[in-house]
Amino acid sequence: MSAQNQEPVDFYFDFSSPYGYFAAFKIDALVGRFERAVRWHPMMLGAAMKVSGNRPLADQPIKGDYADHDWARMARFMELPWARPEPFPIAALAPARAFYWLDERDPALAKDFAKAALGAYFGEGRNISVPEVAAGIGAGLGIAPEDLLAAIATPGIKERLKAETDEAIRRGVFGSPFFIVDGEPFWGSDRLWMVKRWLQSGGW
Amino acid sequence: MSAQNQEPVDFYFDFSSPYGYFAAFKIDALVGRFERAVRWHPMMLGAAMKVSGNRPLADQPIKGDYADHDWARMARFMELPWARPEPFPIAALAPARAFYWLDERDPALAKDFAKAALGAYFGEGRNISVPEVAAGIGAGLGIAPEDLLAAIATPGIKERLKAETDEAIRRGVFGSPFFIVDGEPFWGSDRLWMVKRWLQSGGW
Repeated sequence: MSAQNQEPVDFYFDFSSPYGYFAAFKIDALVGRFERAVRWHPMMLGAAMKVSGNRPLADQPIKGDYADHDWARMARFMELPWARPEPFPIAALAPARAFYWLDERDPALAKDFAKAALGAYFGEGRNISVPEVAAGIGAGLGIAPEDLLAAIATPGIKERLKAETDEAIRRGVFGSPFFIVDGEPFWGSDRLWMVKRWLQSGGW
Repeated sequence: MSAQNQEPVDFYFDFSSPYGYFAAFKIDALVGRFERAVRWHPMMLGAAMKVSGNRPLADQPIKGDYADHDWARMARFMELPWARPEPFPIAALAPARAFYWLDERDPALAKDFAKAALGAYFGEGRNISVPEVAAGIGAGLGIAPEDLLAAIATPGIKERLKAETDEAIRRGVFGSPFFIVDGEPFWGSDRLWMVKRWLQSGGW
């Protein structure tokens, strides 16, 4: 089977996840080297945490402080803007729904929107869970704000995000970012090197 | 300040931690490239979890299953033996105490003992929390079993492990492995690449 005929790599993330932010700016270039595509799946990590029993890093003593330090360090390393957002975490329904609405029309635009939204939240501290803020980010990409606001209020788009989240949980996704390569699961932006090795070698 | 005058890199781990096992077989070679030494600190991760509120991976739905899969995959990648131990996790007091007893006499022998104990537990499934099993591993390195068994029962060695664990928690160690390089904390065997970059560059 040629690389072109292979299934895309699945990339799961929550718009409220700093490590998802870091991965979003890496994954397509990394996977693209192997002539593979990436299918993005924003999801509601809180729903997965209800199943796994995990909690947001910000709520965890000691580990939360380390994470705060690590996010800033990782942003410096990757030369990405970083502004610890407040509130954090957020229930990022608005950008996730907007993503799926855009994805049905123009997947490349949907990814551009996602990167802009992640950058607005983690790089500028703008609360992207507010629909009007999400719409403003879309406006910067030529998307009419009234269309985006109307779209994310429709039952069909709400259901799409719910179905994607349910499917992610069914596939064992418990954190953000999470990658699935030909059925093989990888959790964390720390594991991009392993995703690359897996793509290189076809597994071991 | 020349590299030789610098403080050693601190390596914290629990003998019951698979990722600690993987890191133990990597860290000295990695750090040694920068003419730096590594000081090993076995600790009781359960005590740190009481403070951080974390739980053993084996107890976590979904994430625990992923970890099981990942440990076997990582062992294959590193070409290290792997036999999912049972019972797991264990309260690995015996090998941790034996380590500190040996470390006071011969730090290189203490590291050899630690690697042999980790290999026995994770590579062969032998329960190293049983004092006689730990003593048998020492015997393979020329350490008289009766001396090791007597040493790990002394109040001084018990107190040493407790003090090391308390100090680890005070320094913010919440997982295994955990590295501290010139005051900078790094959690996880996934972050050995970052430890290396930090040593190369002096930070960023």
